[in-house]
Amino acid sequence: MNGPDPDVNELLERVELVDHHTHSIVGGPVAAADYEFMLSESDRSSAAAAAGLDTQIGFAARRWIGPLLGLRPNDPEDRFLGARLALTNEKAAARLLPAAGLERLIVDTGFRGDEILSAAGLGVLAKVPVSTVVRLEAIAERLALEGVPAAGFGSAVRDAVEAELAAGAVGLKSIIAYRAGLDVDPARPRGAEVVDSADRWLREVARDGRARLVDPVLLRLLLWTAVDTGRPLQVHTGFGDPDLDLDRADPLLLTEFLRQTDGACPVLLLHCYPFHRNAGYLAQMFAHVYVDVGLAINYVGAQAPVVLAESLELAPFRKVLFSSDAWGLPDLHLLGSWLFRRAMARAIGGWVAGGDWSRHDALHVIELIAFENARRVYGLPARGSARRSGRDYRSRSSAAPAGTFSTAVDE
Amino acid sequence: MNGPDPDVNELLERVELVDHHTHSIVGGPVAAADYEFMLSESDRSSAAAAAGLDTQIGFAARRWIGPLLGLRPNDPEDRFLGARLALTNEKAAARLLPAAGLERLIVDTGFRGDEILSAAGLGVLAKVPVSTVVRLEAIAERLALEGVPAAGFGSAVRDAVEAELAAGAVGLKSIIAYRAGLDVDPARPRGAEVVDSADRWLREVARDGRARLVDPVLLRLLLWTAVDTGRPLQVHTGFGDPDLDLDRADPLLLTEFLRQTDGACPVLLLHCYPFHRNAGYLAQMFAHVYVDVGLAINYVGAQAPVVLAESLELAPFRKVLFSSDAWGLPDLHLLGSWLFRRAMARAIGGWVAGGDWSRHDALHVIELIAFENARRVYGLPARGSARRSGRDYRSRSSAAPAGTFSTAVDE
Amino acid sequence: MNGPDPDVNELLERVELVDHHTHSIVGGPVAAADYEFMLSESDRSSAAAAAGLDTQIGFAARRWIGPLLGLRPNDPEDRFLGARLALTNEKAAARLLPAAGLERLIVDTGFRGDEILSAAGLGVLAKVPVSTVVRLEAIAERLALEGVPAAGFGSAVRDAVEAELAAGAVGLKSIIAYRAGLDVDPARPRGAEVVDSADRWLREVARDGRARLVDPVLLRLLLWTAVDTGRPLQVHTGFGDPDLDLDRADPLLLTEFLRQTDGACPVLLLHCYPFHRNAGYLAQMFAHVYVDVGLAINYVGAQAPVVLAESLELAPFRKVLFSSDAWGLPDLHLLGSWLFRRAMARAIGGWVAGGDWSRHDALHVIELIAFENARRVYGLPARGSARRSGRDYRSRSSAAPAGTFSTAVDE
Repeated sequence: MNGPDPDVNELLERVELVDHHTHSIVGGPVAAADYEFMLSESDRSSAAAAAGLDTQIGFAARRWIGPLLGLRPNDPEDRFLGARLALTNEKAAARLLPAAGLERLIVDTGFRGDEILSAAGLGVLAKVPVSTVVRLEAIAERLALEGVPAAGFGSAVRDAVEAELAAGAVGLKSIIAYRAGLDVDPARPRGAEVVDSADRWLREVARDGRARLVDPVLLRLLLWTAVDTGRPLQVHTGFGDPDLDLDRADPLLLTEFLRQTDGACPVLLLHCYPFHRNAGYLAQMFAHVYVDVGLAINYVGAQAPVVLAESLELAPFRKVLFSSDAWGLPDLHLLGSWLFRRAMARAIGGWVAGGDWSRHDALHVIELIAFENARRVYGLPARGSARRSGRDYRSRSSAAPAGTFSTAVDE
Repeated sequence: MNGPDPDVNELLERVELVDHHTHSIVGGPVAAADYEFMLSESDRSSAAAAAGLDTQIGFAARRWIGPLLGLRPNDPEDRFLGARLALTNEKAAARLLPAAGLERLIVDTGFRGDEILSAAGLGVLAKVPVSTVVRLEAIAERLALEGVPAAGFGSAVRDAVEAELAAGAVGLKSIIAYRAGLDVDPARPRGAEVVDSADRWLREVARDGRARLVDPVLLRLLLWTAVDTGRPLQVHTGFGDPDLDLDRADPLLLTEFLRQTDGACPVLLLHCYPFHRNAGYLAQMFAHVYVDVGLAINYVGAQAPVVLAESLELAPFRKVLFSSDAWGLPDLHLLGSWLFRRAMARAIGGWVAGGDWSRHDALHVIELIAFENARRVYGLPARGSARRSGRDYRSRSSAAPAGTFSTAVDE
Repeated sequence: MNGPDPDVNELLERVELVDHHTHSIVGGPVAAADYEFMLSESDRSSAAAAAGLDTQIGFAARRWIGPLLGLRPNDPEDRFLGARLALTNEKAAARLLPAAGLERLIVDTGFRGDEILSAAGLGVLAKVPVSTVVRLEAIAERLALEGVPAAGFGSAVRDAVEAELAAGAVGLKSIIAYRAGLDVDPARPRGAEVVDSADRWLREVARDGRARLVDPVLLRLLLWTAVDTGRPLQVHTGFGDPDLDLDRADPLLLTEFLRQTDGACPVLLLHCYPFHRNAGYLAQMFAHVYVDVGLAINYVGAQAPVVLAESLELAPFRKVLFSSDAWGLPDLHLLGSWLFRRAMARAIGGWVAGGDWSRHDALHVIELIAFENARRVYGLPARGSARRSGRDYRSRSSAAPAGTFSTAVDE
C-alpha cells in the first residue's frame, strides 16, 4: 500500500473483498505463449505475442506475483516466466488465490466453461465461499441444442432462468454487447417477434448442430426475462476482445433500457472502461444501476489509481463494486485484488491527504466498495470473518495482522 | 487552498468570480429528502435516496459547508443535516452566498422558475449584482400559451427575444440538448418549415393547455434567432438529468452549427462533462466558442482538479469561464465557487510548481477565467471591487485580508 | 526533466528520438499573426487571433524556447515574440532543431508541401537523417491532374505508390479522416465501383482544373492499395483542424478495417487525442496496430504527462511511438521532443517512484518508444549514435554529457 494515509493503507491491506464478477481458471501446466495470451484481452494470439509482457499488466505480474514465487519484485521476464510456469495452474492458484484476500467469489461460469475448473473447485483453491451468476446466452444456447420448440422458447427460457436461481445462482449476466451491441432497440420484444426469431434461429441450430445466439430480438428477450426475476443483472459494457465493437459497448447506449427498467432489478454495469465516466453518470441517474471497473484495473496496471478515481466522480459510493473479471489464470485474481487495493489507497488516500475527505469517509467508502454494496445487492451473508473487515477501524490497531502486502521491496 | 504555490493560493482565496451560469434557490425550510435530491442531477427521487450523501458532492457539502454552520469539517451526515436543515434556505443563503466570493451572478431564470426566488432576490442575499440570461424554449412556450398564430411564430419569437435583451438580459440559453439532442440538422430552418411545425405544435398546445417544445425545427429556429442577435448564446452540453440522452449531448455534435455561425455570436458551451476535452477542442477551433465545466466541478468533488485540468488542455485560456450551475440550494453556489478555487489551486499551482508555467502566467489565467473572460463576452462592467481582484498580485501582499478559506481544519 | 526518478530523467535528457511523423517548416521571416496561427490547430486565423499565446502551447513556447533565444524562461509574450521573430524561420530552425535531440525525422511531405522547405532541407537544418512517408491522397490528386484515365486509375495508383516506395519512402499516410471520416465502409472496393467513382471524379477534376479527393470509394482504394504493399500505413485519427468532424475521427471506427487487415501491414494510428484510450485498446487487440499521441503532446503542454500516461494504459509498450506532428515552425519540433521527454519523466518516473515499475522496466520502455519501435516498424538502421542511446543505462554514468535541459531556471 503506497497511499499517503496510513489508516487507509492499513484497512486496504486487510479488508476482504467480494469479487462480484470473476471466472475460474484453466487446469494443468501453462505454456509461455498461453500465459501471455491470457494476459491479453485480445482473442488473437498474434496480438498477445506482439505485446509479450511489455504491458502494464505484464509489468504488474512481474512486480507483484514474482515475490510470491520466491523472486525479487520485477525480476526479468525469463526468470519470472521460468518460476511461474514451473507450477501447474492449480499449484499457482493454491498460492495466489488465498493471498488475494477475498471474502467471496461470484463466478460467471459461462465463458469457455468447458475449459476451466468448476466454480466449486476454484472456491476450494481460494478457500472462500463461491456464488455463481448464470450467463443468459448460455442458457438459451443450451435450450436450443436440446431442441426446444420455437413456440415454447420464451417460457423455456423463463423456466430455465428460474431454475438456475432456485438452484442458488445469485444473478444473471448478459453479453449482448458482444453479440449485437448495446445499441439495440431496448423495448421488451413482443411475443410474435420472439416466436419468429426463435423459429429462424432454432432451425439454424438444428441444421448446424451448434448454437451461437446473435439475434437481437432473442437477446432482448433474455434481458427482459432477467429483469422480470428482479434479481441482479450483470451487463458487459466497455472493452473486451475485438469480437466486440467497442463503440457499440458504451453503457450510455443502455439509457433507454435503464429508463424502462428503473426499479425492476439491479443492473450492474461491468468493466465500463473507457466509458467509466459515462457509467458513473448512469449510476447517479438511476437507483438501480451499479458499476465496477473490473478488468480495466488489471489491464491498466500502474494507471489504476487514475482510472479508479475517474470511476468515483459521479457514481454514488453505494453503487460501486469490486471485481477482477479474471479468467484462466489465478494471477489475474490476485492482481485484480492487489491493484484495486493500491489504486484505492492512492486515490482515496489522496483525497484524505488533500483535506477533501475525512479519514472516516475514506474507510466507510472502502467498506462499501469492498464488500457492503455487493452483499446488499446480491443478498449475501456477511462472512464469519466479518469481525476482521468490520467497523473497528477508527483507532488503528497495533495488533493488526502482518499486512498481506508486506513483501519486502528491495529498492 | 491546498495548491502547491502560495501566490496562486492567495489569489484564489480572494479573487471574486463572475458565475456566468447559475440559477436561483427555493425558499423556506428544506426536508432531508429534498436536500439530497437537490444534491443529485437525477430527476428521480429514488436515485437520490439510493445515493444519499455518499457521493463526492455529499462529502464536499459536509466538508466545506459544515464549518460555516458551526460544525467541524466532515462531521457525520445526521449532524450535518440537522444543522443545515435547521435553517430555512434563505437563512442558509444569507450565510453561504456572501461567502462564495462572487463579483456577479448571471442567472438563468427558466428552469422551474416558479419554484424559486427571483433573480433579484438572489442578488440581495448574495450581496452582488445580478444579470440574467433568458431561456429560448421558455420564450417559445410562453408565446404558445398566449396563442400566437403559426404564421407569426418566427417574428413573435424574434420580437420577444429582442425585448428580453432590451430589458437587460445579457444572453440567451438553449436546452436543445434536452429536447431534441445536439444531433439535429444544424441549418437555419426555412420559413415554410417553421410555419408547418409551428402550426402543428401550436394546435397541440391549444388542445392540451400546456407547452413543452420538442420540435427540432422550432428548436433550431430559436437557436438561429439567438444567433441573429449577435449576443452570447449559452448551450447546454454534456451531463444533466436522464431526461437527456447523454450520448446526444456531446458538444462535437455542434461542429457544423459552429462552422455556420462562426463570427456571428459568442457560443458558450455549458458543463460539457464528460465531453470537456471535446469542448476544449471546439474552443480552440472557433473564435466564437467558449467553455466551462460548471456543474461537473460540484458533482465530481475531490476529483475537480483532474476534470478542470483536462478542460484546460486544448481550450485557449481566454475562452474558459467559471460557472456553478447551482439550482435550488445556496450550498451549490458556495461549493461551485470553493471547489473551483481549490481545483484551480491544485491544477494551475501544480504547473507552476512543476516548472511549466511561471507564477505570472498562473495569476493571469486565474483572472481570465475568474472574471475577465465573462466581463468581455457579456459586456459587463468591472465591479467597484475591481481593486481587490485587480492586477496587484506581482508582489505578495503581507496585508492580504484573512483568507475566505481560513476555516480551521482539525486534523 | 522534472520526473521523480533521476535515472529516468537522465536517460530522457540524452536519448535520441525517431520522430516518426512530422512535417517541414516554412521559410523566411514569420509575422506574429502567422506565428500564433501555426501554434493553433485551427484553420481559421480568427480562432488563432482570439487565443493568442494564452494557451498551453503558447506558454510552453515561452517557457522552453525563450531560453534558447537568450531570454529567461516565461518572459512576457511581447518580449518573446520580439526575440523569436527577429530570426528567420531557417535561423530559428538551425538553433532549435539540433536541440531537439533527434535520431531521425520521418517527414510527411503532403500537407501544403509547396509552402515548405524540402524534407532534405529540413534534415540539413536538423543535422539528422530524414526519411519520408507519402500521402496517398496527394498521389491520387497528382494522377488526376495528370489526366489518368478512369479505367486505369487503380493500377496507376498502385504503380505510383510502388514507385514512391522504390524511391525510398518508408511508409504511406492516409487522411481519410479529413476527407470522408473513419466511418466509411471498410471493405476493399470492387473494381467496377472504383472505375465508376474514378470516372465521376476525374471528370470533375478535368472540368475544374484542381483536384481534392473526397470520394469514399477512391479513398478506400488508396487504403487498400497501401495495405497490399505490406508497408507501414499511417492513418490520421483524432483531432486536427475543423475541416474534420472530430466525432468521425475516432479510431474505433477503424475496428472492422483492422480486423480485415490483421497481419497485412503495420497500421500506425496518429495523434488519437481525445480518443487515445480507444487507440490503446486497438493496439492491444491487433498485432499490427501502433499508436502515438503526437500533436496532442504539443497542444496540451503542461498536461502532457496526463495524456501520455493515459495512452500507456492498454497499449503494449512495443506498439507506442514518438511523433511531433510539427508543421511550419521548428518550434513545434523542439516542443514535441521536449514535452514528450518531460511527460515520460513524470509519467514513467512516477510509476518507478510509486513502486509499480522497476527502474529497468522504465528505461526499457523509454528506449522502445523513443526509437526501437520506430526502427523495427519502418525498418530503419540504428544510427551511429546508437552507442549514446544504447543499453548502457543500468549504472548511472557520472560522465553523462550536460543535459539538454540544463537551462537554468531562475525561480
